[in-house]
Amino acid sequence: MELFQERGYVQTTVEEVAARAGVTERTFFRYFADKREVLFSGAKELEKGIVDRIESAPREASPLHTVVAAFEAAGAELQDRRDLRFVRARYALVTKHAEIQERELIKMASLAMAVAKALRARGVSEPAASLAAEAGIAVFKVGFERWVSERKPRDFAAHIRAAVDALRAVAAERKGPTGRLKKKPTRRA
Amino acid sequence: MELFQERGYVQTTVEEVAARAGVTERTFFRYFADKREVLFSGAKELEKGIVDRIESAPREASPLHTVVAAFEAAGAELQDRRDLRFVRARYALVTKHAEIQERELIKMASLAMAVAKALRARGVSEPAASLAAEAGIAVFKVGFERWVSERKPRDFAAHIRAAVDALRAVAAERKGPTGRLKKKPTRRA
Repeated sequence: MELFQERGYVQTTVEEVAARAGVTERTFFRYFADKREVLFSGAKELEKGIVDRIESAPREASPLHTVVAAFEAAGAELQDRRDLRFVRARYALVTKHAEIQERELIKMASLAMAVAKALRARGVSEPAASLAAEAGIAVFKVGFERWVSERKPRDFAAHIRAAVDALRAVAAERKGPTGRLKKKPTRRA
Repeated sequence: MELFQERGYVQTTVEEVAARAGVTERTFFRYFADKREVLFSGAKELEKGIVDRIESAPREASPLHTVVAAFEAAGAELQDRRDLRFVRARYALVTKHAEIQERELIKMASLAMAVAKALRARGVSEPAASLAAEAGIAVFKVGFERWVSERKPRDFAAHIRAAVDALRAVAAERKGPTGRLKKKPTRRA
């Protein structure tokens, strides 16, 4: 991350990353397919932590609550383990570089599939399992973006809870008139 | 699609695709960056159709209903325009080849951003706009998978409506005991 910030992601070579980490290139490639993968070293661990929590959740918990509680715990763990400057630097890279963003999309799609599978193993039927998984991912993403974008960041977990409340409100609205639409008419170009 | 099915996606070359379409390779590359892009020729059109519908939706419609109605209409249009065999063949390619799946994820992420932007233009605030967009995408994906996987396919739009009802039920469940969990205990390995 230091190198990516100093020299730019595109300019940084695997040779430089290996040198900064004090390993040979050969060793680097034993762990990572390329320099992009360095930014996803925690992906499998994140997924495993979330799946483990879903598996051990109280049997009476609803699917969405089970998922959101697992994401909240994972969010709190991430917040404890990582410096916020690191998290923000990584997020800036994801939003700036298409190839990193694509890898992030794959990570989240894999996570959604793992979450849905874990819910089915608890006896949740489809499509509830997939929808609870996708809803959980949406809440995690929105909570994350709000957390890293705040000037004075509060708890990641609190942002996830706020996002799930907002999602519940969005889902509860029926077709009819809604207070969420501003009175001001939309101007067209 | 004929060539991909006859020869396999990996084996098919741009030269062959261009020849089958009766154009030169040079012409092919004026329209598509590579052979994968051929499978995404409708992506921009789909996005535009959905955004247009959101822009012209009744002002009193709730965010989620606005999004779902736009997806339903897009789904019905797709169903009218494309032979189901074509849609299924494309879906089989997406699930089989990682590089196509990645491009599909990018397409859906781009669509989610465009939908959220169109909602904000209607005066929907964040995070409701992003959550309604993500919820809509989830419902579209689940509805699509059910539609193409059915032995005797019904309407795509009906599957989208069923998925949004399921999502509303998932979101409405509070922490407590739920009838969605089967009585049978989950076996652990």
